[in-house]
Amino acid sequence: MSISSAIDALTSVLGDRLSRSKSDLDIHGRSETHFAPMPPDAVAYPLTTTEVAAVVRTCAEHNCPVIPWGTGTSLEGHSLAPQGGITINLSRMDAVLTTNAPDMDVTVQPGVTREALNTHLRDTGLFFPVDPGANASLGGMTATRASGTTAVRYGTMRDNVLGLTVVMADGRVVQTGTRARKSSAGYDLTGLFVGSEGTLGIITEITLRLHGQPQAISSAICGFDTVAGAVDAVMDAIQMGIQVARIELVDTASALAVNAYSGADFPACPHLLLEFHGSDTAVVEDAASFGEIATDHGGHGFEWSAKAEDRNRLWKMRHDAYYAILASRKGTTAIVTDVCVPISRLADALLATQNDIASSGIPGPILGHVGDGNFHAILLIDPDSPSEMDTAKALASRMATRALDMGGTITGEHGVGMGKLDKMTAEHGDAWAVMGAIKAAFDPDGIMNPGKLVPPAN
Amino acid sequence: MSISSAIDALTSVLGDRLSRSKSDLDIHGRSETHFAPMPPDAVAYPLTTTEVAAVVRTCAEHNCPVIPWGTGTSLEGHSLAPQGGITINLSRMDAVLTTNAPDMDVTVQPGVTREALNTHLRDTGLFFPVDPGANASLGGMTATRASGTTAVRYGTMRDNVLGLTVVMADGRVVQTGTRARKSSAGYDLTGLFVGSEGTLGIITEITLRLHGQPQAISSAICGFDTVAGAVDAVMDAIQMGIQVARIELVDTASALAVNAYSGADFPACPHLLLEFHGSDTAVVEDAASFGEIATDHGGHGFEWSAKAEDRNRLWKMRHDAYYAILASRKGTTAIVTDVCVPISRLADALLATQNDIASSGIPGPILGHVGDGNFHAILLIDPDSPSEMDTAKALASRMATRALDMGGTITGEHGVGMGKLDKMTAEHGDAWAVMGAIKAAFDPDGIMNPGKLVPPAN
Repeated sequence: MSISSAIDALTSVLGDRLSRSKSDLDIHGRSETHFAPMPPDAVAYPLTTTEVAAVVRTCAEHNCPVIPWGTGTSLEGHSLAPQGGITINLSRMDAVLTTNAPDMDVTVQPGVTREALNTHLRDTGLFFPVDPGANASLGGMTATRASGTTAVRYGTMRDNVLGLTVVMADGRVVQTGTRARKSSAGYDLTGLFVGSEGTLGIITEITLRLHGQPQAISSAICGFDTVAGAVDAVMDAIQMGIQVARIELVDTASALAVNAYSGADFPACPHLLLEFHGSDTAVVEDAASFGEIATDHGGHGFEWSAKAEDRNRLWKMRHDAYYAILASRKGTTAIVTDVCVPISRLADALLATQNDIASSGIPGPILGHVGDGNFHAILLIDPDSPSEMDTAKALASRMATRALDMGGTITGEHGVGMGKLDKMTAEHGDAWAVMGAIKAAFDPDGIMNPGKLVPPAN
Repeated sequence: MSISSAIDALTSVLGDRLSRSKSDLDIHGRSETHFAPMPPDAVAYPLTTTEVAAVVRTCAEHNCPVIPWGTGTSLEGHSLAPQGGITINLSRMDAVLTTNAPDMDVTVQPGVTREALNTHLRDTGLFFPVDPGANASLGGMTATRASGTTAVRYGTMRDNVLGLTVVMADGRVVQTGTRARKSSAGYDLTGLFVGSEGTLGIITEITLRLHGQPQAISSAICGFDTVAGAVDAVMDAIQMGIQVARIELVDTASALAVNAYSGADFPACPHLLLEFHGSDTAVVEDAASFGEIATDHGGHGFEWSAKAEDRNRLWKMRHDAYYAILASRKGTTAIVTDVCVPISRLADALLATQNDIASSGIPGPILGHVGDGNFHAILLIDPDSPSEMDTAKALASRMATRALDMGGTITGEHGVGMGKLDKMTAEHGDAWAVMGAIKAAFDPDGIMNPGKLVPPAN
C-alpha cells in the first residue's frame, strides 16, 4: 500500500513530527463548511523548505497524496484528504524572514498569519492589507488567492505577492519572481502558483508587497431603504474616485443576526460599512462626500468617525458576522456562496438572489465586498437534512449560473477546492482542460492535493 | 517541405490576405534593435478569431512555425522568424468590440493601438493608462507584459488585463478571465498568457481595465547635481505617499541628445520628469511637495505646470528620447538594456552602470522609469563592428548580472524574446525548466513563435 509505505519512510525523516494521533487526523479532516470529514493518514509538521521537499519527494516515490494545510479556514474543502495521504501542516514554519522597509516588501514562511505579520510590522510604518476575515496563514491566503474587505483599495493576493519559493511535485525547489516591482522575464509563474490551491506545488516562502500605514483612517456606517440604493451609492462613490479602503454590504438578515450575536443595534435594513485611508483632511472629505452620495440614494443614519475604537468595534462586528449568522440557527452548517459580478450587474444579482433565497425557505443572510462586485449568501442548513442540502446546493448553483450569465465568476475569493468543481466547465469551457494540462505537466502522478481545482484525471 | 505545404493550404483559406511579397517579408523580418533580419516565408492578415484559428490549425497540421505580429515595436526580436514560417499580422483586427463604461472595462481586438483606444474612449471620461512609449498594439503589449512611464501609478499590463480570447497551438479557441474585478476560479490563465510572447497561443481579444480620466493633471521637471540625488528624491516621494503618475529619469547624456534632436534646452545634468493625477488641489499640492523634496536632495530649476501644452511638450520629448539618442550617433544601432531592481538599490545600480559604460568607450545614455526601479541604457554601436557589438553585449550582460545580485530582474518590461535567453537560467534557475514544461504542455510541437522565451527543446 503506497500510503503506508510513505508513512514508514517519513517516520525516519520527521520522527515525532509525523503524527498519526486520532486528534490530529480528526482536526485535519474537518472543514469550516458542509463537507463530510475526510481525514489524512498522517500529518507532517516540517520546519524548513528542505524538510517539505523531503516529504514531497518521499510521497512522490510512494505515489502518496500530499495536502498542504495552513490554518484550515478555507471554505471549499481545500485542505481535506478525499484520497487520504499526508497532510503537511505548515504552521510551524512561521518566521518572518526578511523585512525590507525601503523597498516595502517582506519575505515570510507560509505559516505566518496575517495578524502576526502586521504585529511584526507595527513599528515600520508599513502594513500588509489583504484581510479575508479569518486570521489565515499567508501560505493559505496565497494558495487560494484570498482577498476580502480591503481588495477594493489594495487588491487581492494576486496583486500583493512578488515572489515565491515552491516545492514541486518531484521535490525540486524553485524560486519565482524577484524583489523588483515588475518584470517581464518570462511566464508569470508567481501568478500561476497564487490561487493554485496546493495542486501544483507547496509554497514554502512568500515575498509580499507592503503598503504605507495611512496617515489617517476614518470609518462610516449608513443604512439604506433598499439593497439597490446601497449598490447605487457604491457605484457612484467608485466612479467619482472616492478612495474607499473597505465598502461592505450587510443585508437586513445579516444585520439582525449581528444584533443578536454582538449586542449591536443595527436598524432592520441593509447597511454599508466603510473605511477611508489617506491624509487627515482626505479621510474627513471622503467620509463627508460619501455621506452626500448615500443621501442621494436613500441612505439614512449616516455616521462616521475617525476614532480607532469606533472603527475596531465596527470591523469586529463585520468579522464576527459569519459566526453571528451561523449562530442564528441552532445546529446548523453552512453553504457559503461567493459569486462576483461586474458592478453594473451587482444590484440585479443581489435582488435575484434574495428573491431566490426567500422562496427556498432556507435562511440565507448576505454579506458583500460590494466595491468588487463580490458577495456571499450564507445558506444555513440542517446537516442531517438531505433535502435542505439539496435545496441549498440548487440555490448556490443558480447563483453561480446567474453570475456567469452576467459576465462574472463562480468564485470571487474562496477558490474552487472540492466545492466548485461542478461549475468549472460552465465558467471556463475548454480553458478548464488547459488548467488540466498544466496540472499534468507539473504533477503527472496527481499526488498534489488530489481532488481539487482541476478536472479529474482520466 | 512543411512550411511550403502550409502556405499552399493557407492560400486557399486567405486568398490575397496571405502575402509573399518581398516588401512584406522584409518588413516582418526586421526589428527595431540590433538583430539581423529573419524574415518569415509568408505573412497572413486574418480578420477574425476564426481565421486566426484556421491559420494556426493549418500550421499545426504542417508543423509550420507561427509568429504573431502587432506593430513590430518590440525590442528583443520577439516578432522575428528565426525558423521561417508564417507571421500572423494582426493589425487588421483593430475593432474596439465593447465598451462598458459603468464597469470601467473594454474589450478590443489585438490590433487596436493604445492611442487608437484612447481616442475611442475620449468622450467616456475613461482612459487606458499603460504607455510603453511606442504606439504599440494592445495585443503586443499584452503578449510582452508591457508597462512604461505610468506603471508606477496604474501598474503594468499584468494589472490591467481582465480576460483574453486565445487561439491555442492546436487551433482551439479558449476564453480566460471574466469581467468581474477579481476571481479565484482556478489557475490564472489570463496572467499566464500576459507576457507569454506568442509562445503559448495567439491573443485575439483582450478585455482591459480602464481608469477614470483624472480631474486634473500637473507636470514638473527638475534638474539634479547627481543621479543619486534624483533617486533619493524618488524614494522619498514614494515613501511619503505622493501619488506620482509618472516619474522618469533622463541622465545627462540623454538630456544632451534630446536637446540636439528636439531643440530642448535641458541643462547638462540628470533630470526627473514628473506627472501628477488627481483633484485640482491635489495635483498642485503634489507638485509643490515634490519640489520641496527635490530641493532637499540637490534639485534645481524645479518647474511645474498644470497646462496641457507644457505637459504635451514634455512627454513628446520623453517619447522621442529613444530616437534622439539613436540620432546622436550616425549610422548606429542599439542594444537597449532593461534591468529593474528594488528601489533601495537603484542609485547603486545606476552609478555602477554609468561607470561601466564610461570605461567601455561606447555611448550609453540612460532613461529610467525610476519609480519602479527600472532603467534602460541605450548602447549605441556601429552595426558593422563586431568588437563594439561584443563590448556592448558584455556590458549588457554585466548589468543583468548586477541586477540579479541586487534582487532584481534582467527585464522590467521589454521581455525575453531572443535577446535575453542567455540570462534566463541566471534569473530563474530550475524555474526556467518549469516554463519549458508549460510550453511543452501547450505546444508540444513547438510551432508557436519558436526560438523565444523558453529553453530550446531537446
